[in-house]
Amino acid sequence: MGRRAASDSGGRRPTTIRDVAARAGVSVATVSRILSGTYPGAAATRGKVLRAVRELDYVANANARGLAGARSRSVAIIVNSVISPHYAHVAQGVQTQAAIEGKLCIVGTTGGDPERELATVQLMREEHAECVILVGNVIADDAYRERMANYARALAAAGSQLVLCGRPALGSDVPALVVEYDNTGGAYAITSHLLSLGHRRILFLGRRDSYTTPESRVAGYRAALADHRVPHDPGLEVEGRMERDEGYRMIRDRLAAGPRDFTAVFAGNDLIAAGARQALRAHELRVPEDVSLVGFDDLPPSADIDLTTVHVPHEELGRTAVRMALGRPRDSTAAVPGVMLGTHIVVRDSVRPLVREEPRVG
Amino acid sequence: MGRRAASDSGGRRPTTIRDVAARAGVSVATVSRILSGTYPGAAATRGKVLRAVRELDYVANANARGLAGARSRSVAIIVNSVISPHYAHVAQGVQTQAAIEGKLCIVGTTGGDPERELATVQLMREEHAECVILVGNVIADDAYRERMANYARALAAAGSQLVLCGRPALGSDVPALVVEYDNTGGAYAITSHLLSLGHRRILFLGRRDSYTTPESRVAGYRAALADHRVPHDPGLEVEGRMERDEGYRMIRDRLAAGPRDFTAVFAGNDLIAAGARQALRAHELRVPEDVSLVGFDDLPPSADIDLTTVHVPHEELGRTAVRMALGRPRDSTAAVPGVMLGTHIVVRDSVRPLVREEPRVG
Repeated sequence: MGRRAASDSGGRRPTTIRDVAARAGVSVATVSRILSGTYPGAAATRGKVLRAVRELDYVANANARGLAGARSRSVAIIVNSVISPHYAHVAQGVQTQAAIEGKLCIVGTTGGDPERELATVQLMREEHAECVILVGNVIADDAYRERMANYARALAAAGSQLVLCGRPALGSDVPALVVEYDNTGGAYAITSHLLSLGHRRILFLGRRDSYTTPESRVAGYRAALADHRVPHDPGLEVEGRMERDEGYRMIRDRLAAGPRDFTAVFAGNDLIAAGARQALRAHELRVPEDVSLVGFDDLPPSADIDLTTVHVPHEELGRTAVRMALGRPRDSTAAVPGVMLGTHIVVRDSVRPLVREEPRVG
Repeated sequence: MGRRAASDSGGRRPTTIRDVAARAGVSVATVSRILSGTYPGAAATRGKVLRAVRELDYVANANARGLAGARSRSVAIIVNSVISPHYAHVAQGVQTQAAIEGKLCIVGTTGGDPERELATVQLMREEHAECVILVGNVIADDAYRERMANYARALAAAGSQLVLCGRPALGSDVPALVVEYDNTGGAYAITSHLLSLGHRRILFLGRRDSYTTPESRVAGYRAALADHRVPHDPGLEVEGRMERDEGYRMIRDRLAAGPRDFTAVFAGNDLIAAGARQALRAHELRVPEDVSLVGFDDLPPSADIDLTTVHVPHEELGRTAVRMALGRPRDSTAAVPGVMLGTHIVVRDSVRPLVREEPRVG
């Protein structure tokens, strides 16, 4: 299973069971049976296979190393939940890059509970994960920063490496790597897209103060309004979590509370957009004919609802996190590096130019 | 984090950092700082907290137990990929039930590579996962059965437990638990739904011989045709993997190859349905006006495309797997239990009755 020592010293790729089978001149299934002690056949075959195993150091790679403590065989990613497709796609990037580097990939889930997060980080450390990648939206308060700094130091002390993914940097005294993506820039671009097409009353769904991800998206929304000299109406920012039923709820409540006072909706992510679209349809409002709708994330189902949205390079985030963690010399005292990946608009068919009947309200 | 021994002997819930803080009369953040050695404040406070920690056995729960080897703190699930929403929702059920049982949840991903699966099972065993849940679609040949039997015995020897989820049982001599769901019944029901509405030429997308999941769905499709006395045309079964682009490809190629010879499409899962729908639209075929379309899985995005589909109890599969594994006495010699969860149709708006212009071909 891929050792860095081996690949560093001459680029030798890890020995696989197929190599053993080829060297011994038997099938992979036979090697597997012999190694697992369930081979019923000739002793000569067993001898050939075990010789190949020794010659190719295969046992040292997979089995004996495992028994000796499983050091550095895996990379770990910790997320709130794997049914959030945002997290799942980042985890997929981690898995893909881990496979390329000859590592296993394990995913810890916390349900958003800091105690489970702590326990999961400990578990990954004890398991000698080569790096521990923490993903996503947080309240970046002092307690958070301190918790992360403690994780970073504990992991560094154990020869591992904390990587924050889609989370803000901690400061140069903390041994953590950071890979972010441009939330504010993406939100600015898609708000500008709506403004350029004449929309002035743009409902933002999914404001959540002090959470880093929605905060940076709201910041981009407000900056675009300011640059287009459109007055900012805080009443157009609706609070909610980044989930599908929340999108439904926010639109349902808004339309129940009074006449529609917006021509476009900027959903804080694609899940909110999907729920909002369903609520709009329940009120016989068509997208885009009656209301324009945009999202954020560009996850695969957004193509099904023709959603114009912001592309987030989820898999590349995960891959970059692994590459940074495995590529970085452990004893470096250089400034802790951070990477910011770009985002961009994907135009589909959920936005219409606002014809010159001036926005109905405001 | 939750010991079964503790809860078995009197139902005491695990001590949390909040309990320690309450007992010491300080904030959770203070406890956290003191335990992590970064508390700058008064020695008296430190003394109070450490006393509370000792009295409540908090260190024994989280830290010392961790250092002592992290036994039985976690349940593990191994999937091909977490971006498959089917797997992700099963994993979510595992996570939910694990949290209820006071366990951590770790997910291993294999990319479908048997060598990575083997290495990941080993890793989970070394990490002392209380159970290892393997999910999903496989080729159930002899090599597979032998590999699983080896996993089951190796895990049982280490005090752990193999659970197969959505996979066929192995036989009563293998110490594995099995939780399945009714693929054939669901496929029978939804095919009958189409047949009852007059469809006779139903294209099945996603046949894949010898893979257990598509095979059992095709079996339900064929059984419904037979019971409705509709001749089985193998030419209507299109081969493909259970992915979105495969759905697109299968419809695109079919329509490129000749005139449309079907009135309805049974997509082997919701992902195939989403891709197929996109390809139909690219050919200006509307769902359901021109072609009826059904899927299998009932994942959240199926509501966005109004897809009539078969509901699979994904989260309940994951939760049941954990409950079975943790509830079962380790030394039982009774027959290995298996559970089959039901599936049912969810009717949305992707099917139209076929008006009496007899099917165009066949």
